[in-house]
Amino acid sequence: MTKGRSRLAPSLSKQSDPAAGNGILSRRIFLEGALVTSAACAGASDASAEPLAMQSWMKEPGAGFAPYGQPSHFEDKVVRAVLSPPNPPLPGVGTARTPLHLLEGMITPSGLHFERSHSGIPDIDPDQHRLVVHGLVRRPLVFTLEALHRYPMQSRIAFIECAGNSGALNAPQAQPLGIAAIHGLLGCSEWTGVKLSTLLDEAGVDPSARWVIAEGADAAGMSRSIPLAKAMDDALVCLYQNGEAVRPSNGYPVRLLLPGFEGNMNVKWLRRLKLTTSPAMTKDETSKYTILLKDDKAWQFVFPMEVKSVITRPAPGIRLRGPGFYEISGLAWSGNGSIRQVDVSADGGQSWAPAALQGPILPKAPVRFRAALQWDGGPAVLQSRAMDDNGMVQPTRASFAAERGLRGVYHYNAIASWHIDERGEATNAYA
Amino acid sequence: MTKGRSRLAPSLSKQSDPAAGNGILSRRIFLEGALVTSAACAGASDASAEPLAMQSWMKEPGAGFAPYGQPSHFEDKVVRAVLSPPNPPLPGVGTARTPLHLLEGMITPSGLHFERSHSGIPDIDPDQHRLVVHGLVRRPLVFTLEALHRYPMQSRIAFIECAGNSGALNAPQAQPLGIAAIHGLLGCSEWTGVKLSTLLDEAGVDPSARWVIAEGADAAGMSRSIPLAKAMDDALVCLYQNGEAVRPSNGYPVRLLLPGFEGNMNVKWLRRLKLTTSPAMTKDETSKYTILLKDDKAWQFVFPMEVKSVITRPAPGIRLRGPGFYEISGLAWSGNGSIRQVDVSADGGQSWAPAALQGPILPKAPVRFRAALQWDGGPAVLQSRAMDDNGMVQPTRASFAAERGLRGVYHYNAIASWHIDERGEATNAYA
Repeated sequence: MTKGRSRLAPSLSKQSDPAAGNGILSRRIFLEGALVTSAACAGASDASAEPLAMQSWMKEPGAGFAPYGQPSHFEDKVVRAVLSPPNPPLPGVGTARTPLHLLEGMITPSGLHFERSHSGIPDIDPDQHRLVVHGLVRRPLVFTLEALHRYPMQSRIAFIECAGNSGALNAPQAQPLGIAAIHGLLGCSEWTGVKLSTLLDEAGVDPSARWVIAEGADAAGMSRSIPLAKAMDDALVCLYQNGEAVRPSNGYPVRLLLPGFEGNMNVKWLRRLKLTTSPAMTKDETSKYTILLKDDKAWQFVFPMEVKSVITRPAPGIRLRGPGFYEISGLAWSGNGSIRQVDVSADGGQSWAPAALQGPILPKAPVRFRAALQWDGGPAVLQSRAMDDNGMVQPTRASFAAERGLRGVYHYNAIASWHIDERGEATNAYA
Repeated sequence: MTKGRSRLAPSLSKQSDPAAGNGILSRRIFLEGALVTSAACAGASDASAEPLAMQSWMKEPGAGFAPYGQPSHFEDKVVRAVLSPPNPPLPGVGTARTPLHLLEGMITPSGLHFERSHSGIPDIDPDQHRLVVHGLVRRPLVFTLEALHRYPMQSRIAFIECAGNSGALNAPQAQPLGIAAIHGLLGCSEWTGVKLSTLLDEAGVDPSARWVIAEGADAAGMSRSIPLAKAMDDALVCLYQNGEAVRPSNGYPVRLLLPGFEGNMNVKWLRRLKLTTSPAMTKDETSKYTILLKDDKAWQFVFPMEVKSVITRPAPGIRLRGPGFYEISGLAWSGNGSIRQVDVSADGGQSWAPAALQGPILPKAPVRFRAALQWDGGPAVLQSRAMDDNGMVQPTRASFAAERGLRGVYHYNAIASWHIDERGEATNAYA
């Protein structure tokens, strides 16, 4: 479909200037709302040739009201990918991963926010639940849910990323995995709760305290040690997620949010905060969530998730249907601050062009980026590379491996690649 | 519980300076994270007197993974309020209203986003659905869902408010209604889709076109006329709501978003856009959604929802449990721009103090505001008054009535009041 090309010639000539190799176009399309030519898009068909049908659902009344709405049944394949270890000791051990390739925008629907449990999801009665603050405080305190609701609240949009996200890319050969399996331990919500510093001030922090041990009310008693400085900075004791009560799989009725810090420090089902002089060296910060380096040393207590990005469309399962125009869409985030820039490449990193960033750009929140691809139908390797406002840039896989090795499992943040073949299929690749 | 008061004396003395009458404190609590004294809060109890119980849910493994998560069953009363007219002609005629008093933050959970239907919710097969652009265009076009997904997208957080929201406050006497029944035709989502201007550019707008008639695929064929200038400005043809496909009750698979414009212009189940020289004068913009004034004249085509705010906590059903500190929490929004300031009053508007505004403050998106109340246990009348960045301020009910009268039903945006009685119960009041 090339009709109307002539009328669009001025815009077409601007946009057909490639911004990087192998079909990456200028981001003006997004920033200026410039025209996408029908020649490039080939999206629509001629209405005069295809009259508008009166579908069955227009001929009779639709459904009545539901007290709590759900997605369309036509979307029943938009679900989390459940990955359990072989022979899991319990039904709730493993992960349910966000299907990033089927989502858009910045917010993750709460029903699709990833989930990592060590002993399943406890069914907590909020009237029975208590949060205790004790240890090195003047007055140990117990908070009911009703008490927590009496305190001043804050809201913020923040990502949570499991420390093990993208760990599959440590494998020596690129595995034939989808985006949920590789990168789906990432979610973003608008969280609302009481500043942890408010509760600690209520209890009266002893000057000798340096750490806060946070414990969950799951059967595993998942526990992590948190530097007091973080607790007093931007930590939030969350009661709400995307406007409503925190979901059970994300910590109902109380979850700790440590913006930017690795996922399992954001302790779910929060029941206890103990102030101490030293970290507790729990199993979840020693045998796990410690980064084994190539020289047999290890990094412990590496808290913020490093700057990172992933292209969510195209991705495995989202096929390019013939040459033409496509939007490349993805997410970028940094546990150390705000995203400043994202570059994209269609030639495996030989050339790059800046993507358009969707505002609002918020600290420790994901940013949706978009770029324009004129796919010629040949092989392509799509990559994205994020930079945060500290100037930190995602490393290549080779430089990441040279620095840390590939045994660490946790905190993998190297540039990821999708190989596009002649059929338009995307696969996980190392490039 | 007054222990520890002495250590908090400096903060206490700052905060006990009232910022307005009848217990409104300084917003420093929110802006500076200043201490809330336990004397004021009376929220927590002494941990040494109440040891932490080991609850049943810590003694056995929890539930396994769900592909699509749901709220806790302990939250099953957090639902939309369904209000149908007497003897509704169809099961889906009426409204399902957002329970604002049970929510927090800016985002409305998609399952609780209000819903107004004229003929129920159609069950649309996205593979069969088509969107047509025709009328005064060079090339009439038909878009499949797949075609729409080929275009560059944008995301934005925006409120949608039904033109009839708060219409109950036109009644001569204050009715004993809850916040959902009065103000619950308001929701906010992160919407993602294709700019309408992109699709219109594809079709080639004829220079004589001035209006766009948008039609839904519901049995009512709900239709509205939209000025072309708005269509070319910030209108979005939405495919995603809060990250996932638009919910059926909110227009699946395609909804028009006209940021700031009255709700039913944001046509759900969008199937047709016809460019014309004049408005179509559909039933939904003549017999309805036209504002009858006191002098028997009427305002038609009043599109943007005016600056407005509502206190969501306390509110009917959210009781103050004894004298002490409470957070006043609410939402403010303007269809004409961004919120610049919100003031709160506890004495029915005799005195005001500025509330803290929760960022990010985005145009045509709600802003969560918070204020601090030291309730003495006596009667109070809580009000909020929003101002937008055009300098527009919510009128009092008296001045609203003097200008327009109270027969208009639509676009009611006067200052609303909750009367708090000695038991701490909030009721709808005129003040």
